[in-house]
Amino acid sequence: MSDRAAIGVDTGATRTRAGIVDERGQVLMRTERPTDPLAGTKGIIAVVEDLLERDADLDVKVECVGVGAAGFVDFPRGAVTFSPNLIYDDPFIRDAVESRTNLPVVVENDANVAAWGERAFGLAQGTSELALITLGTGIGSGFVVNGRLLRGYGGAAAELGHMVIDPDGPECKCGLRGCLEQLASGQALARMGREAVEQDPRSSILSFAGSADSITAEHVARAGREYDETARTVLRRAGRSLGIGLSNVANIFDPEVIVLAGGVVGAGEAYLGAVRDQLVAMTEAQKRRPMRLDVTSLGKDMGIIGAAALALDESST
Amino acid sequence: MSDRAAIGVDTGATRTRAGIVDERGQVLMRTERPTDPLAGTKGIIAVVEDLLERDADLDVKVECVGVGAAGFVDFPRGAVTFSPNLIYDDPFIRDAVESRTNLPVVVENDANVAAWGERAFGLAQGTSELALITLGTGIGSGFVVNGRLLRGYGGAAAELGHMVIDPDGPECKCGLRGCLEQLASGQALARMGREAVEQDPRSSILSFAGSADSITAEHVARAGREYDETARTVLRRAGRSLGIGLSNVANIFDPEVIVLAGGVVGAGEAYLGAVRDQLVAMTEAQKRRPMRLDVTSLGKDMGIIGAAALALDESST
Repeated sequence: MSDRAAIGVDTGATRTRAGIVDERGQVLMRTERPTDPLAGTKGIIAVVEDLLERDADLDVKVECVGVGAAGFVDFPRGAVTFSPNLIYDDPFIRDAVESRTNLPVVVENDANVAAWGERAFGLAQGTSELALITLGTGIGSGFVVNGRLLRGYGGAAAELGHMVIDPDGPECKCGLRGCLEQLASGQALARMGREAVEQDPRSSILSFAGSADSITAEHVARAGREYDETARTVLRRAGRSLGIGLSNVANIFDPEVIVLAGGVVGAGEAYLGAVRDQLVAMTEAQKRRPMRLDVTSLGKDMGIIGAAALALDESST
Repeated sequence: MSDRAAIGVDTGATRTRAGIVDERGQVLMRTERPTDPLAGTKGIIAVVEDLLERDADLDVKVECVGVGAAGFVDFPRGAVTFSPNLIYDDPFIRDAVESRTNLPVVVENDANVAAWGERAFGLAQGTSELALITLGTGIGSGFVVNGRLLRGYGGAAAELGHMVIDPDGPECKCGLRGCLEQLASGQALARMGREAVEQDPRSSILSFAGSADSITAEHVARAGREYDETARTVLRRAGRSLGIGLSNVANIFDPEVIVLAGGVVGAGEAYLGAVRDQLVAMTEAQKRRPMRLDVTSLGKDMGIIGAAALALDESST
């Protein structure tokens, strides 16, 4: 008898990636294509059909499809209700994919599926209380509470990136000020890097980037790794902000494990060390149980694996 | 046949209150006594035994006991693991009360039982996604997620009062800076009132209090109601901070309803209006669904009713 398997789809702002994932969380086959910002849903269907055409050689039965989508998701309806970056030509993704594949489909927010993947196959296996934070251009989050995903009343929960931690901080495109995303994400590192080289034009941030306008988080991280003190100050400030955000997560959720994921976790010790120091200072000050803080082991497949894991779990209940 | 009923106990810092509550949330009989800070658990047993001796006239069957306790609670063990204000002579409250009454006992954090009471019999009946915030000397909170209480891994969740919203803000006795409790609670209003009269000694805050050292939140609220502009500025600043806290609650939990409770909800329109304005500004900026924000209808019985409701629900599952 064949193993059960699912297709997991990860719809990023630039690439739509998909894979066939078995019950042990192994990715058996992958595909990807550029995300068309005017045809996000068509792109999802295309990667799913691509895998279904090629799965004959695998000794598994593809039973269902899970889709991770950026934005607010109405889980019961399988629809995206609001998406800041991607424009789905058809927001009713579940119905659109089901009608083409005749497989049961679940649609869930991308950070939520990542949290589910960590719990199913990552560093937080079996825990009922988990916080996952994605650190990329923006900041996303997914929370498992009492063993279930936190979705909220209208699917708009777990937007940790827009938790205000400094009411007089920089403006955020969400309309608030001092959101965590403006203080600790990739875009925040880039902005803080640009501001820092105005004060210190000799920083190697600028030499790596070529011009101030081209500075990215990666330039700041690279300069930090080479002991550029201006870059390290930026990284430590951002890390401290994330640590305050995680301290709030600890006070609100008391999770068993906090898992960090996304490109910015590679920003180096000046950043991650400051995150850890701030969280430890908080647990010690409050005499709280020390909390496990880890970096995801699922790497770039996190979204694919999480979406497939959620589809398999939902279809077996 | 008699109706089911439970005893609910509310252990406050100054009074231990208890009542017999029926299945419809009606309090049929009450008792209370001063809280002995060296014998909190003995006090709980005393009020429970008092009610059990007097319940013969009631046409109900007292089936179980619920206890709301200030501090971190290990729900499975029925024990208080950390309590900043009350000192329980025996932290294993469930075992202590069960051995004296032969009734099943549940012990839960006081803000959590309040949230459960709101859901069972208050303004949030039947919702699966609820945030309850208690505004007293400090700030507490209880969250219902997917229809269940958020307890966290070690019973230390839902400490919204220690969410940092201003990293450079005033010190908190928890060891952090700029906790919501230091910016929007009763103790915060008192401190901000004292600071304000240093600048404006003619404020009626000072005439109501007699001396700066005696200023309480109530003096600030009273001066605010009489249009003292210094008091109203303090109230608006505190309200804005609470509004930022609730905006974070919205971004993290996306609740169906937020319920406010505790003495400080009576601080008047300068305070509550600023809370509401900040929350509305946030939902509009983020184009979020407008959120229901209400003040509890359960009044001072909230803790008793919530503890009894939780005991009844736990004993019928």
